[in-house]
Amino acid sequence: MQNSYSHSLSNNKQLTQKSVNRCFNGEQHYYSHESKATQSPMTFSIYLPDEALAGRRCPAILYLSGLTCNADNVTHKGHFQQKCSELGIIFIAPDTSPRSHADIDVADDERYFVGQGAGYYVDATQAPWTQHFNMETYIVDELYDLLRAEFPIINMGIMGHSMGGHGSLLLGFKHPSKFISVSAMSPVCAASESSWGQQAYTEYFGDDKALWEHFDASKVVARAGQQYVSILVDQGGADEFFLEGHLQTSKLQEACEKAKQPLTLRYHAGHDHSYYFIQSMMSDHIEHHWHMAQLS
Amino acid sequence: MQNSYSHSLSNNKQLTQKSVNRCFNGEQHYYSHESKATQSPMTFSIYLPDEALAGRRCPAILYLSGLTCNADNVTHKGHFQQKCSELGIIFIAPDTSPRSHADIDVADDERYFVGQGAGYYVDATQAPWTQHFNMETYIVDELYDLLRAEFPIINMGIMGHSMGGHGSLLLGFKHPSKFISVSAMSPVCAASESSWGQQAYTEYFGDDKALWEHFDASKVVARAGQQYVSILVDQGGADEFFLEGHLQTSKLQEACEKAKQPLTLRYHAGHDHSYYFIQSMMSDHIEHHWHMAQLS
Repeated sequence: MQNSYSHSLSNNKQLTQKSVNRCFNGEQHYYSHESKATQSPMTFSIYLPDEALAGRRCPAILYLSGLTCNADNVTHKGHFQQKCSELGIIFIAPDTSPRSHADIDVADDERYFVGQGAGYYVDATQAPWTQHFNMETYIVDELYDLLRAEFPIINMGIMGHSMGGHGSLLLGFKHPSKFISVSAMSPVCAASESSWGQQAYTEYFGDDKALWEHFDASKVVARAGQQYVSILVDQGGADEFFLEGHLQTSKLQEACEKAKQPLTLRYHAGHDHSYYFIQSMMSDHIEHHWHMAQLS
Repeated sequence: MQNSYSHSLSNNKQLTQKSVNRCFNGEQHYYSHESKATQSPMTFSIYLPDEALAGRRCPAILYLSGLTCNADNVTHKGHFQQKCSELGIIFIAPDTSPRSHADIDVADDERYFVGQGAGYYVDATQAPWTQHFNMETYIVDELYDLLRAEFPIINMGIMGHSMGGHGSLLLGFKHPSKFISVSAMSPVCAASESSWGQQAYTEYFGDDKALWEHFDASKVVARAGQQYVSILVDQGGADEFFLEGHLQTSKLQEACEKAKQPLTLRYHAGHDHSYYFIQSMMSDHIEHHWHMAQLS
């Protein structure tokens, strides 16, 4: 049920266009490409408003998804298309990890916190992960450059949910020259101190916990100091992962206070960790990035 | 990742609450129940804005999905929640067929136009379908009464997509005392003359084509005469099923002219048959039903 016509934006031989669907006043596209950073084929979705399809440069938002997700989840259930159509914003959803690497058995559902669907947006230093699990380099160098070369992007904000909220804070504050705005929903705020993050980081980095701190969003924010005019973080009050201590939102608040980084942190009574929360917050996040793009 | 608390609306023992998620200013619920009409367990989703959760009566929209879908597709990808939250509208998505009937083998993917996911919103008269495939009675009697008994509904509009667009037109014009408004996206307008419908109706009704006409939306509309102030139909211009002649939109237009039934029929260049089209049109359809609810 998809169109298959080629668009002029997709002439670059690095990109294979997988689908195009008209959606509001724009198009939802999917692409795959061979990544050098992950030595694996990677897939991403990109929503292009009509302004971008006409070649006019637009602000863009890079959205990082959470554990177990791929590009589909937010593209189907995140409800970003209408607001991006209205404001003329490009919205990109990459995958959360490489998927094709027969040399690593990561298909164990009980270990969903590491491997496929769990790249944590870091470059692994331990075998067997080092060859493929280089998601930081993939996102901030390879995909970033590819997107800016291929699509009419003025500037880019970064946002994410859960593990992807950790990713947007981590990459936003490690690479402030690349992004003009940062936001997160239900972020894992202290990966080095959460049980999910600790299990992933033991695999990706080994036992040296001092190293883990370089990949902990709150510690990176505290060390980086103020990098953005303001960041927006939303957290559901009935989120079971928040209530069980996996997210540690207060550590991000403390880090922002220490760094004098203005933070709008909102708690939402009754909201959980699901895509129903993501869709409920999405318009506010897109508007946050849009306002920051106007200032820049 | 779902809450599981019981809501006061779900005290009726006929309904089993499967999930509750806070979503915008309201909640997305799922329920299952044992249906007499289909002699099968049936599942539906219902979005309840805060007004309804507080017990205030609200207008409702019954959404009928297309071939191969269940209640999940539109609930995940239809983007109705924000607009229903804003306007205070209840939105119900039933399944498209019974699912549990070991006596009928309907798991053949090549025959997706009949059986599971393909109830066509009719009551079958031929074996082996008669026991379970009674979707018209299920929707307009059993589920309708259950919804009005269980939830604070003022009045109900009916809408749908593709096979569900056929369903909304068919049931809306056969049962105008039950619904205050009708709309459809990409409807199968002449099921008795489309290859999908013909294959389904041969199974459900046998070879008597005169009987099929009673379950053909355009013929029912023409026969019923004007029943609604206005109906809204949207059709994508790049919809492959439209282009291949499965939908026969012009027959609905002719039937409405004959019946003097006001019809707003809009074609949308570039749009296909997918959920990207549904989400693009959804707000307009919800507003159509909301305006009709204000008039009634």
